[in-house]
Amino acid sequence: MTTANKFRVHIENLRGRPEVYHLTEARWAAACARHRGLARRLEASIGWDGTTLDQALGQSDFLIGIRGRLERLAERAPRLKWIHVTMAGVDRFLPLDWLPPGAVLTNNHGAHGVKAEQYMRMAYTLLNTRMAEIISNQHARRWQQVFSPSIAGKTALIVGLGDLGQAAARAAKQLGLKVAGVSRGGKRVPHADTVHKTAALDRLLPLADYVVLAVPLTPDTRNLMSRARLDLLKPAAGVINIARAQVLDHEALAAKLRRGELAGALLDVVDPEPLPPESPLWDTPNLVITPHISCDDGEHYLDISLDIWFANLERFLKGKPLKNRVDSRRGY
Amino acid sequence: MTTANKFRVHIENLRGRPEVYHLTEARWAAACARHRGLARRLEASIGWDGTTLDQALGQSDFLIGIRGRLERLAERAPRLKWIHVTMAGVDRFLPLDWLPPGAVLTNNHGAHGVKAEQYMRMAYTLLNTRMAEIISNQHARRWQQVFSPSIAGKTALIVGLGDLGQAAARAAKQLGLKVAGVSRGGKRVPHADTVHKTAALDRLLPLADYVVLAVPLTPDTRNLMSRARLDLLKPAAGVINIARAQVLDHEALAAKLRRGELAGALLDVVDPEPLPPESPLWDTPNLVITPHISCDDGEHYLDISLDIWFANLERFLKGKPLKNRVDSRRGY
Repeated sequence: MTTANKFRVHIENLRGRPEVYHLTEARWAAACARHRGLARRLEASIGWDGTTLDQALGQSDFLIGIRGRLERLAERAPRLKWIHVTMAGVDRFLPLDWLPPGAVLTNNHGAHGVKAEQYMRMAYTLLNTRMAEIISNQHARRWQQVFSPSIAGKTALIVGLGDLGQAAARAAKQLGLKVAGVSRGGKRVPHADTVHKTAALDRLLPLADYVVLAVPLTPDTRNLMSRARLDLLKPAAGVINIARAQVLDHEALAAKLRRGELAGALLDVVDPEPLPPESPLWDTPNLVITPHISCDDGEHYLDISLDIWFANLERFLKGKPLKNRVDSRRGY
Repeated sequence: MTTANKFRVHIENLRGRPEVYHLTEARWAAACARHRGLARRLEASIGWDGTTLDQALGQSDFLIGIRGRLERLAERAPRLKWIHVTMAGVDRFLPLDWLPPGAVLTNNHGAHGVKAEQYMRMAYTLLNTRMAEIISNQHARRWQQVFSPSIAGKTALIVGLGDLGQAAARAAKQLGLKVAGVSRGGKRVPHADTVHKTAALDRLLPLADYVVLAVPLTPDTRNLMSRARLDLLKPAAGVINIARAQVLDHEALAAKLRRGELAGALLDVVDPEPLPPESPLWDTPNLVITPHISCDDGEHYLDISLDIWFANLERFLKGKPLKNRVDSRRGY
């Protein structure tokens, strides 16, 4: 096959990001070896920190790994057909008015489920064991026996039932929790005992032992977990956010934790990230902060991502519509 | 039935202990309702802080809940046949030379498994998610993304395969871990892939991703996890102690954690307890301390304990040997 028949794919990296997100020559070669037939149709270039981006854009059919909107893209990338971003939340790319006509944007939906399920097992058991309180006590060099009941039979309320929400539901069922799910459409999913539309949220919140936020950030979900909604929770409830910081009123959450009106919270997302040293969140009592690591497998995140990309490439070559296509109207 | 046919049981409490350990009239009444036929054979007294102990001892056949050795007991308690302690580790009661001839001591074996299993699920996932490091970073107000791989396929080495060790094995298998067990006899147990005698420990330690200490404290197990044995662990390994502080060299463990020679550790037991504020353990990096809460159900610990006791009472009344009898020679 001649070069002329090949599609050109450009992979863009940032050295400043953690290594787990470096799509290196070696990772790419390994993925090509896993998808040999498809890889033969490609010519790839790998760039770092934008230094070769402009040159690559001029010739690329596909683009992988950009971290934000690109200006004047139709002009800079006349052949561009498809951009894949190696994250699930694409709020920063919206609206899609920067995308050249005919080009599509896909996200990394499907890459996070396995790790998210493990994180959620940790999250539920951590909150049930009252570890948020125990960790605060350790910080204060205070020995205080806080006991906890069995987790089985408690209720997890999972808001958002995509990749992450369903992983949260799987983890909950394994631990013997009851699972109530909330989604836009209210459509049943595996591992949720009941599924409700968003309108039911205010009725469900007082029943929850654990509230899990797993929605994409859209105009509809911004501040979904507002001060008023936080006030609907039981004092013994725990809150877990693996979505985006902006879906939850952090200030109201921290105030409630300081007043002892909530048992604990676990935030994997904050605003801004990195969280600056002076943020009052760091030492909010009974609050555990994880640095946005809930859903990304530390060894295989990009391998999984590339497998998702190659599966989509096969669809592309067969003329089928791509999966994981970002819907500008829905916002994810 | 006349009073003369009844056995007298005295229950002793300490007000200073957490409420979960207060064997109140209400709890006792609830247990009697669950075991109505057996309860008819009893007359019970409940005492606090030893104020009525001497008077009660004079008439009691059974004693529940003492927290240490009792002096001149044969003389003080001429009718005493059976003492039950509501804990699993009975090292503080040994040797049994204080026990009147013919009286037996039983422990609370069987009361800890369900809660211990839940704690261990938390412990494995917490260490696998590198939470010990993440918590240390939060303490230092430092945002640093630390990623972790999947937990499945890692190896848990469980030292001690009694009630707690088997709970640790069950939790490990649920999470997809490989389980190597170590016990005195090396006898197979459910949920352990392999079981070895203690002599194999030095060979197994370098293979472990997680070492779980779940042995009773005996002369054989004191300092079992010595400095030299800690040095056999991989730098990526994690250590979990749900046994007794004295089975592990805490000073050596803390030094290794400070030098970054171990990924993390979770201690549910320390020496002394309560751990004083000035202890250097509190802020040892990548060390999480839980205040001896791993195995006791916060709602039902004493209910479970009393069910164990009533099952043994039935054996006593039928003339069968009691279960959970402490063996002075073995030391547990």
